[in-house]
Amino acid sequence: MKDFSYYNPTRIEFGKGKEAKIGQYISEYGLKKVLIVYGSDRVKKNGLFDTVAKSLSENDIAIEELGGVISNPVLSKVYEGIELAKAAKSDAVLGLGGASVLDTSKAIAAGAVYDGDVWDFFTFKAQSTSALKIFSVMTLAASGSEMNNYAVVTNEATRQKMSIRSTATFPTVSVVNPELQATVTKEYLAYSAADIFAHSLDMYLTATYLPEYIAGYVENILRTVIRTTNVLLDDAGNYEARGEFAWAATNALNFTTFSGIENNRFDTHFIEHTMSAEYNIAHGAGLSIVVPAWMRWQKNFLPERFKRFAKEIFDVDSADEGIDALKNWYTKIGAPVTLKEGKIPEEGIEMMVEKLFVGAKMMGADALYSKEMLTTVFNNAK
Amino acid sequence: MKDFSYYNPTRIEFGKGKEAKIGQYISEYGLKKVLIVYGSDRVKKNGLFDTVAKSLSENDIAIEELGGVISNPVLSKVYEGIELAKAAKSDAVLGLGGASVLDTSKAIAAGAVYDGDVWDFFTFKAQSTSALKIFSVMTLAASGSEMNNYAVVTNEATRQKMSIRSTATFPTVSVVNPELQATVTKEYLAYSAADIFAHSLDMYLTATYLPEYIAGYVENILRTVIRTTNVLLDDAGNYEARGEFAWAATNALNFTTFSGIENNRFDTHFIEHTMSAEYNIAHGAGLSIVVPAWMRWQKNFLPERFKRFAKEIFDVDSADEGIDALKNWYTKIGAPVTLKEGKIPEEGIEMMVEKLFVGAKMMGADALYSKEMLTTVFNNAK
Repeated sequence: MKDFSYYNPTRIEFGKGKEAKIGQYISEYGLKKVLIVYGSDRVKKNGLFDTVAKSLSENDIAIEELGGVISNPVLSKVYEGIELAKAAKSDAVLGLGGASVLDTSKAIAAGAVYDGDVWDFFTFKAQSTSALKIFSVMTLAASGSEMNNYAVVTNEATRQKMSIRSTATFPTVSVVNPELQATVTKEYLAYSAADIFAHSLDMYLTATYLPEYIAGYVENILRTVIRTTNVLLDDAGNYEARGEFAWAATNALNFTTFSGIENNRFDTHFIEHTMSAEYNIAHGAGLSIVVPAWMRWQKNFLPERFKRFAKEIFDVDSADEGIDALKNWYTKIGAPVTLKEGKIPEEGIEMMVEKLFVGAKMMGADALYSKEMLTTVFNNAK
Repeated sequence: MKDFSYYNPTRIEFGKGKEAKIGQYISEYGLKKVLIVYGSDRVKKNGLFDTVAKSLSENDIAIEELGGVISNPVLSKVYEGIELAKAAKSDAVLGLGGASVLDTSKAIAAGAVYDGDVWDFFTFKAQSTSALKIFSVMTLAASGSEMNNYAVVTNEATRQKMSIRSTATFPTVSVVNPELQATVTKEYLAYSAADIFAHSLDMYLTATYLPEYIAGYVENILRTVIRTTNVLLDDAGNYEARGEFAWAATNALNFTTFSGIENNRFDTHFIEHTMSAEYNIAHGAGLSIVVPAWMRWQKNFLPERFKRFAKEIFDVDSADEGIDALKNWYTKIGAPVTLKEGKIPEEGIEMMVEKLFVGAKMMGADALYSKEMLTTVFNNAK
């Protein structure tokens, strides 16, 4: 085990109907004015907004609201929320939706207590150290955002998709009710599975040191995702599978998988972020294209790890067979595995490589994300 | 997945030499007066106390100290610590040692802010809701106490071994440096392994509902404990194995294993506590005797679970073969598996059954822990 710090103060309230108690949870922290953030008006039509609003008002909590968050959430919406929160003197932000809503909520919470431009936090000009309290009711399992402090936002003006991470941007309480996640389409379920896989494999297939205990821990997550996705595609109402899928998603990116490892990277997320910023493909769909293509590049650097993955997850013997098996599984569940399937034009490769290389230089990672590497990965995805 | 709440705010600082930064960690929380709790003067002789004291004084933190905590820690020592902490107006308690030291530290921290008798918390007369801040530097991996809010203390007067659990008794920061744990004797390493197994099996073999994801999670802990114990018995200085053993121990009782399960119990801990309160046997040694004996009783209630355990952990086919394999492994690593090996007189069985049954009645669990059940378990351990 390499040295590490582990800290995750988020409280998870998991189970049926727990969204109806959100007002009680929030009032336990003495908070009185909440900005509710959501996406489309689906949450109004299906009653979720009303359930939550009722619980808040029963606990004497005043409500402001901000709808219209889109997937691959944008900076302009964050600015809008910050204005609202400042004007209303909100003391908490409650995200009602999926990852994009919670990303937006976290960025609003950080920006609302900062005098400068919140984008400073995304471009390393400033470090966020405080924020309004953050709460969430998750309607989609994939990002792990409910139990981590990441927020990913796209700056429409610069077309940059960047992230922040601060000790202040952990949700205080997140509600995970698998029933609320049962209405996701089959398509998005597959994208979610691909997202969880990417969170896990970005670490598992890059760490230069991976303790056996953590390897087993991540493999248990991956097996759970495969098993439960297969069940849910046939039986969307299966609560047990939905619940395990949700909890595996949370655990795939709540920092437990990073304990004691060395030198992990976020290759596929880094590459995909530019793809979805340019072409607005769903993040998970972008990842199911990038991951196998990237694996063909990466397998040469950690051959034993790739063999282990192949054996443990798909019971096949070689790195290539493991990659094929993953690709086949993505196809089976309906996630795209080529640029063409994702409607990404091959002519865009050069431009994406250039953009990514600029970003890599900004992070001082241009040796790692060389143009050769990036081009090879995209070519593997043709 | 059944409904659950998960909350664990403890920050873990894991790695070599991190005890030398404890003053820095504590000062991050603005604390100024620390009561250091420890056991024998071994921590003074081996330099650990000085390392920690130096770090505290460099951070302008005043020190009081309380040594002499014994294993199966006693209430009189807790009272002593409470007096000291109150007199010195301590704002934090730092445990320097193993589980007993941290149990004592937690009880002192809870008692120091309470006007009544701290034993009230152990006997359900009062609920602890606040405490001094708790820190730890762990010299033994076994209890998981570094990342949970349990404290177990024996009342010498009544010979009761009881526990508390409060939201206030989570350590704020725990240092886990595997090197500090490398001097444990082979005997105590085996007892520690048995303790971790018992934490895991008490849940895994009693929960009436166990999600597949959690089953896999716990099996990964158990396999890690077997693998690393076997390595360490031959090679005590193996840092990687020592580190994985430590982290598996932490994860076995930090509430992650309880997520989404139903109706778990602490049978073997309940039974063993009386055994060690009466005969002062090491807790882990008591558990290696009780666990297989209890499994012979329990296997009839969850036969499929026991078959799974046998297959997944020891690659054998039946419940009985699984129990035999565990018993053989305990013997191989030097942990006792019979009352005789633990120097517990068979004549004591009746008295222990009576005591346990009184405790069971107090908890309203006398139907579960019937005299027949308790007697059978002890007889199985002959």
